Amino acid sequence: MNKIMVGIIMGSDSDLEVMNGAVEILNELDITCEVSILSAHRTPQHTVQYVEDAAARGLRVIIAGAGAAAHLAGVAAAHTPLPVIGVPIKSGAMEGMDSLYSTVQMPPGIPVATVGINGAKNAGILAAQIIGSVDLSVRQKIENYKEKLAAKVEEKNNRLQKLGIESFLEQK
Amino acid sequence: MNKIMVGIIMGSDSDLEVMNGAVEILNELDITCEVSILSAHRTPQHTVQYVEDAAARGLRVIIAGAGAAAHLAGVAAAHTPLPVIGVPIKSGAMEGMDSLYSTVQMPPGIPVATVGINGAKNAGILAAQIIGSVDLSVRQKIENYKEKLAAKVEEKNNRLQKLGIESFLEQK
Amino acid sequence: MNKIMVGIIMGSDSDLEVMNGAVEILNELDITCEVSILSAHRTPQHTVQYVEDAAARGLRVIIAGAGAAAHLAGVAAAHTPLPVIGVPIKSGAMEGMDSLYSTVQMPPGIPVATVGINGAKNAGILAAQIIGSVDLSVRQKIENYKEKLAAKVEEKNNRLQKLGIESFLEQK
Amino acid sequence: MNKIMVGIIMGSDSDLEVMNGAVEILNELDITCEVSILSAHRTPQHTVQYVEDAAARGLRVIIAGAGAAAHLAGVAAAHTPLPVIGVPIKSGAMEGMDSLYSTVQMPPGIPVATVGINGAKNAGILAAQIIGSVDLSVRQKIENYKEKLAAKVEEKNNRLQKLGIESFLEQK
Amino acid sequence: MNKIMVGIIMGSDSDLEVMNGAVEILNELDITCEVSILSAHRTPQHTVQYVEDAAARGLRVIIAGAGAAAHLAGVAAAHTPLPVIGVPIKSGAMEGMDSLYSTVQMPPGIPVATVGINGAKNAGILAAQIIGSVDLSVRQKIENYKEKLAAKVEEKNNRLQKLGIESFLEQK
Amino acid sequence: MNKIMVGIIMGSDSDLEVMNGAVEILNELDITCEVSILSAHRTPQHTVQYVEDAAARGLRVIIAGAGAAAHLAGVAAAHTPLPVIGVPIKSGAMEGMDSLYSTVQMPPGIPVATVGINGAKNAGILAAQIIGSVDLSVRQKIENYKEKLAAKVEEKNNRLQKLGIESFLEQK
Amino acid sequence: MNKIMVGIIMGSDSDLEVMNGAVEILNELDITCEVSILSAHRTPQHTVQYVEDAAARGLRVIIAGAGAAAHLAGVAAAHTPLPVIGVPIKSGAMEGMDSLYSTVQMPPGIPVATVGINGAKNAGILAAQIIGSVDLSVRQKIENYKEKLAAKVEEKNNRLQKLGIESFLEQK
Amino acid sequence: MNKIMVGIIMGSDSDLEVMNGAVEILNELDITCEVSILSAHRTPQHTVQYVEDAAARGLRVIIAGAGAAAHLAGVAAAHTPLPVIGVPIKSGAMEGMDSLYSTVQMPPGIPVATVGINGAKNAGILAAQIIGSVDLSVRQKIENYKEKLAAKVEEKNNRLQKLGIESFLEQK
Repeated sequence: MNKIMVGIIMGSDSDLEVMNGAVEILNELDITCEVSILSAHRTPQHTVQYVEDAAARGLRVIIAGAGAAAHLAGVAAAHTPLPVIGVPIKSGAMEGMDSLYSTVQMPPGIPVATVGINGAKNAGILAAQIIGSVDLSVRQKIENYKEKLAAKVEEKNNRLQKLGIESFLEQK
Repeated sequence: MNKIMVGIIMGSDSDLEVMNGAVEILNELDITCEVSILSAHRTPQHTVQYVEDAAARGLRVIIAGAGAAAHLAGVAAAHTPLPVIGVPIKSGAMEGMDSLYSTVQMPPGIPVATVGINGAKNAGILAAQIIGSVDLSVRQKIENYKEKLAAKVEEKNNRLQKLGIESFLEQK
Repeated sequence: MNKIMVGIIMGSDSDLEVMNGAVEILNELDITCEVSILSAHRTPQHTVQYVEDAAARGLRVIIAGAGAAAHLAGVAAAHTPLPVIGVPIKSGAMEGMDSLYSTVQMPPGIPVATVGINGAKNAGILAAQIIGSVDLSVRQKIENYKEKLAAKVEEKNNRLQKLGIESFLEQK
Repeated sequence: MNKIMVGIIMGSDSDLEVMNGAVEILNELDITCEVSILSAHRTPQHTVQYVEDAAARGLRVIIAGAGAAAHLAGVAAAHTPLPVIGVPIKSGAMEGMDSLYSTVQMPPGIPVATVGINGAKNAGILAAQIIGSVDLSVRQKIENYKEKLAAKVEEKNNRLQKLGIESFLEQK
Repeated sequence: MNKIMVGIIMGSDSDLEVMNGAVEILNELDITCEVSILSAHRTPQHTVQYVEDAAARGLRVIIAGAGAAAHLAGVAAAHTPLPVIGVPIKSGAMEGMDSLYSTVQMPPGIPVATVGINGAKNAGILAAQIIGSVDLSVRQKIENYKEKLAAKVEEKNNRLQKLGIESFLEQK
Repeated sequence: MNKIMVGIIMGSDSDLEVMNGAVEILNELDITCEVSILSAHRTPQHTVQYVEDAAARGLRVIIAGAGAAAHLAGVAAAHTPLPVIGVPIKSGAMEGMDSLYSTVQMPPGIPVATVGINGAKNAGILAAQIIGSVDLSVRQKIENYKEKLAAKVEEKNNRLQKLGIESFLEQK
Repeated sequence: MNKIMVGIIMGSDSDLEVMNGAVEILNELDITCEVSILSAHRTPQHTVQYVEDAAARGLRVIIAGAGAAAHLAGVAAAHTPLPVIGVPIKSGAMEGMDSLYSTVQMPPGIPVATVGINGAKNAGILAAQIIGSVDLSVRQKIENYKEKLAAKVEEKNNRLQKLGIESFLEQK
Repeated sequence: MNKIMVGIIMGSDSDLEVMNGAVEILNELDITCEVSILSAHRTPQHTVQYVEDAAARGLRVIIAGAGAAAHLAGVAAAHTPLPVIGVPIKSGAMEGMDSLYSTVQMPPGIPVATVGINGAKNAGILAAQIIGSVDLSVRQKIENYKEKLAAKVEEKNNRLQKLGIESFLEQK
């Protein structure tokens, strides 16, 4: 399974730190991905070409992150039959409300699977879930990941019960 | 392909008219689905049981629609490794802003693929895209559907050019 | 001056009634325009082609109206050096707030001249002002139009002073 | 009265610093409480089990704090006949608006007694008021607490009258 | 148990239709209540007197409903050690957002247990839960009520499974 | 004219730094004022007593500043025929939107003259304008103040024209 | 007292029905007023001239109502030392939020005394309170008015106690 | 082409740092401009005079930046037939939402071409596009500028592909 499964695109290199959250979780789940800076407004032809080639190149999911009037996910969705996950990026005076609305409120026919503002990690998990909807080994990895999440909460709760609030807060 | 692929759940029968948009488009794309009324708050055990069984029963995607403090999609996502699509339903004084925020702003680890307010049709298409990410016959149907969408826009534009605005508006 | 000066595009024929406000005021100011239904998401190639040809065809301004996650004006602005005026259309649960944010909050480099929600008439006037910034006969027509606006307010005020509130409200 | 009266739960240890405000005021009012980290999405079974046992264990009130798409209070309310107080926690790009809406806008049948964003102290007082609605010694403690609050305001006002604004601000 | 347990107050008789939702559910749960029109701004003395007498008269909970800059619940909470439940009423241009913020965002020391906009029914249930936190017969009634809620959802779901969507929607 | 003309009240000493803006401008305009910390929720009786005595003591205007669910100005307005100016104070997660709505959206019959968030200086000027509506010497002082404001803008503009942007920004 | 005391201006005759609320209450309180349609944007010179003459003509207060980007009250305040009361008018897609923000958020130096959205009646009462701050006969009329308001609430409450909810709602 | 083409005005020198973004891009595109501090509320006469003279002085476009209840662009638009571009400036508790609404929601007849909050650079580009709508040398400069924008994105993308995420982020 060496083929790239997930294409992660973003409108600007200033989005990279946030979007890296998707890369990290995909790496953790052993799902291959690639990352590109492609702007819906500044390099529209390159963006369209990338998205139009994605399915034929074997990508299964596209993750698109953008801030402000965030059109990247919608533009991607317009040019591919693949599922497109949109990550609204927090930036500027509206702190991501503009990107959320620009990403989630797509017109009938062209959905974008939107996650929360700056929710790149969740975008990566969602991409894994999409791949795992038919690939049982990926699905197992998601189950394992969720168990680790649960274990971490339990471990913290246990530590809190043992230490009490004050010591817990001090040791954090 | 007679097995049910998509499980559509909603918090109340008052959501059915909106959620039927997902059923209709899935029917149009020849993707099998089932519909249940399951409340995160009123029938939580049944909801959890449904969602926990979903993967083993062969479902590939869950679509969850709910209004107000819409917890259904999040609760579903907590109990399955399958991708969960959330449809915020417009209702009450906040007209769906509460459901949008309750659905999309999921904490790290448990994503919900959120579509626009009342965007049940798009939820259906997204479910199809998820299935089509590995099933080329479904993907083809999505391509066909998008071509029909484009053709309808073109046809309307052509009619507008021929008729002019006034006649076009009259004949609508 | 028979060449088309202003290209008015909109994402759906459901926007036509609102966008007709731009056509009517441009007609009143004797500025030629054309109207097309072009969707950023459903007919993206046609949209891009239209916008890329616009300058060479002699258009001076493009007016783009769209609702929800309104990407049309931004997509247009990405493909032309002409000024693009964006009209956020009121629709759905967010009543145009989504279209406003999607239209006005464009990233650096690709501006959209945004008017108010459903402000198609103002988009038409703005297009005329842009043309009138070098064409004195158009500018004169704008001055005349503003004088007529003022005269109407004055006439109403005079009638109010003469009739009193009650009779004025009855005769409205 | 050594039995635990109030169960305080929160979705993540990052909420502990805020939620400690409830613990402190309950301590001050001599009301016993316990604190647990329980996630509606990451440890849902543990959460449900805790809440379902709460009434039989003698708890009188549950206080639930969570951020983002804050489902914890609602999930708790679904599984107990006890009153559940919800504390929306400020976090992320929406600064707690998402948690407020997710907590307060509960559907008919399953109320959550919501306090202000980060209002953990008020949640503690409200829990005391609920217990004090039949326990006159607790009620008296609340009266005393409110008198202390009033005295502090009066004392500050007196100091302001004596010192004048400048000296008052300097000595703060 | 003939003594009045719950005092329901509202700022205007225009709130009565909404607030009646609290009365009806309290009647259904056999909890006695009384209803008064008391304005924080128009009859402030009467309001204060009512609230100050409430505990001595044996009331256990106060429910306060008001619209716009809704101060009634906060004013009530300032004058009683009893728990005060606030119901933001939808009215005017802000459709209840103003009442929600005015009710829920109380300063430290004076909590209001806020339910959703127009959530009078939930206010009644919450009042019952508060009484039921020590009164097991009331608690049992709440359990019964929640079972009925669940049964209604199950019954609807069963009917939907039997009839299919179309027939279900027709018979609604 | 040694009698106190303006009573400035605020809900907490944490509001004093902002509210001092009103004191300073009133001092500059030679209008006498007094400042008190009076909480609508923590010292309601004192607050009511202060406001009820205000007119008889010769006060002409009351300025009330408060944050969060800001009821102080409304409570004041309920107990006096004097004009009450409300200053919404920025605080907490909502950054003053809650105080603005709680202050400005008063029900019919009990107005509050609301200024912008943290607009204490403008509250002071408005108080002066109210006094100046019959007192020509105060009115003259307001005219002088506005001329000074204008002169400052002109002076800055002149300096900008002389220095150019870069030097102007450096010398700021 | 035959001289006009209050000048009521509005941006459009479509605001007249709302603004008439100010006229009616001023009539009821025997305060003389005049009404004009003056647009900040369409008849700016006339507006400025009216406002600049207001003080010399003996007006004591100006009430300005406008919708959308409501600049009228601010423009008025820029040209007079008199207190200016702003009434944000509900209109268009934003339902008055735009007018509220445009009216209340005035920069330092130029306050507008803002009332709630469509709060023309309160604007009238506020104008009376301003006049009554030195005119004891007007102040008495305001006291009487507030007593009538209180009596109406009391009368309704008494009727509710006598009739019970059902009959009360029927007879409304 | 030595005549000044674009007049940039702003309400306060505190807006200069943001508005300088318009100056810099106009300089880069070889379009002459001038900058003035002119307040709609503090120096209204000077503002009106500047705007009324603008067309006769040969200006083609006016750019107006202001914060809070931002009336400057609207006031400018009321006094000139030239196109007016509005820049809402982020400031104060509302972080520019007030300026956005005050600028974009202009009433019919008086449009303002609004760019995003703090979008001064885009205002400059829009002004250039307006001039370039008839001036082919300016249009060419805009095309060149957009090509540079695209090249920068491509260059960053290439660097990202070569370096990988970690090294890219480190070298930023």
